[in-house]
Amino acid sequence: MTKSVRVALVGLGNVGRSFLALMAEKATLLREQYGLELRLTAAADSSGAVMTESGIDPTALRLHKERGGRTGDFLGGVPGMSARKLVAQAPADLLLEASPVNLQTGQPGLDCVRTAIRRGMHVVLANKGPLVHAFGELTQAAAEAGVGLAYSATVCGALPVVNIGRRDLAGCTIRSVRGIFNATSNSILTAMARGQSYADALRQAQLEGVAEADPRLDVEGWDTANKLVIIANSILCQPATLADVTAVVGITGITAEQIRDGAAQGQVVKLVATAERDVGGYRLAVRPEWLPADSFLAQVNGFEMGIVFETDIMGLQMYKVEERGPVPTAGAILRDVINIMRGSQI
Amino acid sequence: MTKSVRVALVGLGNVGRSFLALMAEKATLLREQYGLELRLTAAADSSGAVMTESGIDPTALRLHKERGGRTGDFLGGVPGMSARKLVAQAPADLLLEASPVNLQTGQPGLDCVRTAIRRGMHVVLANKGPLVHAFGELTQAAAEAGVGLAYSATVCGALPVVNIGRRDLAGCTIRSVRGIFNATSNSILTAMARGQSYADALRQAQLEGVAEADPRLDVEGWDTANKLVIIANSILCQPATLADVTAVVGITGITAEQIRDGAAQGQVVKLVATAERDVGGYRLAVRPEWLPADSFLAQVNGFEMGIVFETDIMGLQMYKVEERGPVPTAGAILRDVINIMRGSQI
Repeated sequence: MTKSVRVALVGLGNVGRSFLALMAEKATLLREQYGLELRLTAAADSSGAVMTESGIDPTALRLHKERGGRTGDFLGGVPGMSARKLVAQAPADLLLEASPVNLQTGQPGLDCVRTAIRRGMHVVLANKGPLVHAFGELTQAAAEAGVGLAYSATVCGALPVVNIGRRDLAGCTIRSVRGIFNATSNSILTAMARGQSYADALRQAQLEGVAEADPRLDVEGWDTANKLVIIANSILCQPATLADVTAVVGITGITAEQIRDGAAQGQVVKLVATAERDVGGYRLAVRPEWLPADSFLAQVNGFEMGIVFETDIMGLQMYKVEERGPVPTAGAILRDVINIMRGSQI
Repeated sequence: MTKSVRVALVGLGNVGRSFLALMAEKATLLREQYGLELRLTAAADSSGAVMTESGIDPTALRLHKERGGRTGDFLGGVPGMSARKLVAQAPADLLLEASPVNLQTGQPGLDCVRTAIRRGMHVVLANKGPLVHAFGELTQAAAEAGVGLAYSATVCGALPVVNIGRRDLAGCTIRSVRGIFNATSNSILTAMARGQSYADALRQAQLEGVAEADPRLDVEGWDTANKLVIIANSILCQPATLADVTAVVGITGITAEQIRDGAAQGQVVKLVATAERDVGGYRLAVRPEWLPADSFLAQVNGFEMGIVFETDIMGLQMYKVEERGPVPTAGAILRDVINIMRGSQI
């Protein structure tokens, strides 16, 4: 018995296109192992949108985009049609929101998610914007509408940080969270430690396709802060927005000389997000920290990301992932879809 | 709205007694955060059993046991009453099976689990025996009965290996699993590398309360093999028993001299469980391996346990936990209970 799921995809950047590739590559596995058939019935990017109940070939759309085509110009597409309008009309059971993060307002992703929930669609987010701006509103709306809302792709790509925190640390008191959440910044610091220049290292990260559309989000700490805000809301049950992160300091002030001096003293600099438990709740901060070279986070290198949870009854838990390019984040979207459809999403 | 859950606990060793302590310590958190009230209505160990619909004080029972008392002699207890008989009659919604592993038959835990499922009770296992002997039978029976069957405590204590593999790697093809699953063996190897004798190091692990009741299960590789069999069945979807582990070699043959020689060449010996994907399925083995000192698994030290999943689309995922004593395993039982009761167990 195969369950067919009509999917609307908003955002056809690196992650969105990787998801289109997975829809084709993983079709057999999804059917055989999970009894799922994903059908793309709607897609939008900033150029326009396309939708059809009979289904869009994900490979054809991906190739169209990769050849420089615009979604509005794809067969059956409507140039200039907005994502908001698409989501309001699309014949879809599930919205995948993978458009670029908007730090100021979370739009237009936020409105798309609101509309999808109101229409009874499940929602899977790779875009952090809507969560950072309206976590409480969206999770409550989804609960009331009885739809799934999953976002494991928003923190550390394929590393299931959100899911571990929400499901596997249930029953714990989390004393602190410390993590390296931005692969671009981390790869730059690792490359600088090996003698590369800041500019060359940034260019390399952009070539890898892991840098945000606007790399200032990466190197100035805002992408890390976004992820910390999502962790605070979803795992630590502390309502928070970016305004609650007491310090957001990036890596742009770190010099090659500082890195050399640190190394001589057995220290490594990392861009670390921290949530420390205090009387009034968790104190949230993002800033470069000098760590002993043999510590766990100091050994999260290059394009790796990692996290350490200090708990009361489940020990010290340490996780890291070595992943390249946008595919793992698309993989995280896929697992969220599978888990929503089999009813096992928390 | 608080949901009351009547709990039957079989096995009052280190883990079972730690769970009794958590029932008291975490009562407020469970009520406030998860709307759960756990009520102990039945308990058994090899000496006898006690049950009462009105509830047993978990702290009183724990103190009775810690003072050397027998469960059969506890207020209202029945000396000589078997766990099998208790589970067949207990007024309980959920069975926690935490009795010592029986490598030969999985009994009496296996019969207890069968009976509990037949009676419509949820089951949470810390005892690997029943799973290693009858994974397919028990998971199918639980699915048919519509009850939860969770066992995240059976592999690496509080590190949620099973849950991550089943839920978060959904959609992946797992190319290999490599892990260090036995804290006793690992702590002995780490201690020997620091110059301690094998016998002293084993004694230390026993004092920590992490060694199996029969330490040969630890140092001869069988505890690790049990965990690998559970991973094969639950995560890799490959039906397996201990007979399918092609090699089970422990650490008893490793000498201080070998460890010194390895260190001189930048190598560290670890007891590693591996599942390698091959044409006919996964090849399973447990044996000591010499690893480069700077590799992830080589840095899983002392009482830590760790695992590496190599996947096709979710990168290389590496996890480890530093935990001491039996509390983290009891914590894993607690999370399983919470997740079953909120309907989010896979």
